[in-house]
Amino acid sequence: MIPQRISLLTIGTENVPVLRAFYQRLGWEETAISSDEYAVFKTAGVLLSLYPLKKIEEDAGIQFTAATGGYKPVTLAINVEEREMVDAVMLKIKQADAEILKEPYEAFWGGRIAYFADPEKNVWEVAYNPDSVFDERGAMLSF
Amino acid sequence: MIPQRISLLTIGTENVPVLRAFYQRLGWEETAISSDEYAVFKTAGVLLSLYPLKKIEEDAGIQFTAATGGYKPVTLAINVEEREMVDAVMLKIKQADAEILKEPYEAFWGGRIAYFADPEKNVWEVAYNPDSVFDERGAMLSF
Repeated sequence: MIPQRISLLTIGTENVPVLRAFYQRLGWEETAISSDEYAVFKTAGVLLSLYPLKKIEEDAGIQFTAATGGYKPVTLAINVEEREMVDAVMLKIKQADAEILKEPYEAFWGGRIAYFADPEKNVWEVAYNPDSVFDERGAMLSF
Repeated sequence: MIPQRISLLTIGTENVPVLRAFYQRLGWEETAISSDEYAVFKTAGVLLSLYPLKKIEEDAGIQFTAATGGYKPVTLAINVEEREMVDAVMLKIKQADAEILKEPYEAFWGGRIAYFADPEKNVWEVAYNPDSVFDERGAMLSF
């Protein structure tokens, strides 16, 4: 049986210090196992980690192609409990020098969403979905 | 304050039915909100969803470059509680027609890891870390 879980999400980064500084500017707390070359942030349910692309290529025995430059085709979402929180969170994200891709707007399905990118063009969505259910730690159980 | 959470991870996919069939072959259960064009799988802590790349481009107002072909520079991990589970899980993953990137091996830091890719070259790691701590739902709290 394959455990139905994503334990850890690792962004292969071109520059750990620059990307780490961005997530620190969000006010996010790192775990004790972070090191100079490896930044691991606590999140609700999973851990977000930053690790050099080349090291991942070594570990996995692969080569990423066109890893630099463009937007990355995996998007991450921060879901919030209140519609107004989308705007409030995006204000804070602007202050962290994120690239704002889409200012908050009403989605056709009844929610409110916005998009930003981190300094290496990893795409994040901030979303309010009226049907979201969260657990006590802020992890989204369903929607 | 920016909630320190990854609520939802969305893989921008070139072919939803093919990729959905792969994750179904892992034995993973979908949520009730899945539709023909949008597959949402339960995981520990976050939700994994598959959605067409082009739709994400529309939503976020961006264009992904070189989105097809190569390995994607975000890696996801399934952490397991026992060293032997890495091998057991990889056997099941092989049966799901995954591309095996690295058979299980002992990592220099004392764990055991393996790598595979899904049909659109999203890279997954299966990992045992002797210092991992899991919650009651299988979410990794720390390591």
